Parts: sequence; C-alpha cells; structure tokens
Amino acid sequence: MVLHRTSPDLSITFAALADPTRRAILARLASGERSVTELAGPFKMSLPAVSKHLKVLKRAGLIARGREAQWRPCRLEAGPLKEASDWIETYRRFWEERFDRLEDYLREVQNRQVRNRVLKKEKRYGRNK
Amino acid sequence: MVLHRTSPDLSITFAALADPTRRAILARLASGERSVTELAGPFKMSLPAVSKHLKVLKRAGLIARGREAQWRPCRLEAGPLKEASDWIETYRRFWEERFDRLEDYLREVQNRQVRNRVLKKEKRYGRNK
Repeated sequence: MVLHRTSPDLSITFAALADPTRRAILARLASGERSVTELAGPFKMSLPAVSKHLKVLKRAGLIARGREAQWRPCRLEAGPLKEASDWIETYRRFWEERFDRLEDYLREVQNRQVRNRVLKKEKRYGRNK
Repeated sequence: MVLHRTSPDLSITFAALADPTRRAILARLASGERSVTELAGPFKMSLPAVSKHLKVLKRAGLIARGREAQWRPCRLEAGPLKEASDWIETYRRFWEERFDRLEDYLREVQNRQVRNRVLKKEKRYGRNK
C-alpha cells in the first residue's frame, strides 16, 4: 500500500534536493565536516551564493552548523533523507515490476534468437546432408 | 562512497515531488489509472489547477497519459522515482549510523536504570537485614 503522506517537511526536503549545487554540497559533506569557504571552493561561486544554498539546506534540516565562533563547520544531517527515502520506498514495487517486465522481454528476445539459430543450423544441416 | 551526481533530471524529479498535491496525485495513481476528473475529485481544485500539476509530473516523467481521445487516463511511471531512490540510498549509512548511536544511547540509559534499581534494592535489603 502506498501511504498518502503529504508532510510539509517532505516538500521542504524535496525542494532543497531539487538543485544540483545543493546536492553537490551534501555529497562533499558526506566525506566530513567543511567550512563555508571549503565548500565554496570547487563551485566557483561567491561566498554569499553558497551561503544562500546552505541556508536552504539548513532550513530543510539537511545540514547543521557548528558553534565555533571562528570556524562554523557544516555537517550532514541525514534524518530528512531517511524520511524522503521512506516515502519513495513505498513506490519500489512499481519500478521493480517495470524491470521484471523488461527482464521478461529480454529473456523472450534471447530465447527467440536461440530458437532461430537452432532452426538455421537444422536447415543448413538438412541441406548439406 | 557517495556519488557526486548532479543530473538535471534529478532536479526536475525532486522539484516535482516538492508539492503535497503532486505527491497525493502519485499516491492515487499507485492504485491504478485515473482520468483528470477522477484525480481532481478529492482535491477540491479546479481542473486547470490539477492539469497544471499533471503537466509538471509529466515533464518529470513521473506520469504518462493514455492515447484514448475521450478518456486520457494518467498512469504512474516509476523510473524517475528509482533514480531518486538510488541517489538517496547513497546516504543510507548516515541515517543508519544516527539510529545506531541513538540505540547505543538508549541501551546505556536502560543499563543505568537497571543498575540504579539493583543498587536501591541492595541498599533496602542492607537496611532491613
């Protein structure tokens, strides 16, 4: 059964994930805490632009900031990702069915090719006899 | 390892999922094909408003429309949900670690309570002896 969840938190999480820079920031944080300057590095973006993305991620609860006055490192918070995963998982049977159908189709094509090859061989054998 | 995927398709999928009405539409389609009128029913929304949401879902590849001229039913397409799930799954260890830590903490609290209860009993026993 698919749950009819309409949590506003899920909307905030999905909206935060709907940006490639924000997903790349999360991917960097997956290998450890980073300062804003460190995060900005590979993106060739201004610090204010990165800070804006961090604000969206923080509001969605996807990151937290340290309390150190000088260096306030960002770290990944996975709670909302788990919620998003739980929601998507309720649809798993649909994509698995799709791949089952694809697998059935490929098996059918393969069987047909094998049958054709056998028939051809039999024909050739019949001709050469 | 977390993959550094920045697929634009993922952005379109997450943006489409970032709305409670669109998630509710997908949930309804999980139980079978529906016409636009049937989908609009429970939402107390105008048909144009529902159609707008359906357009977003269709652009994201999350639904497909039938070809019947009169009744063009919508059906769920799970491919993009699988991609979104694959992306989120790369972060699974983070929320599992979080729950492991929580479990450790709860076990520690429980052990402490048991120890305190035993100590209290021993004290009482010592007093009454």
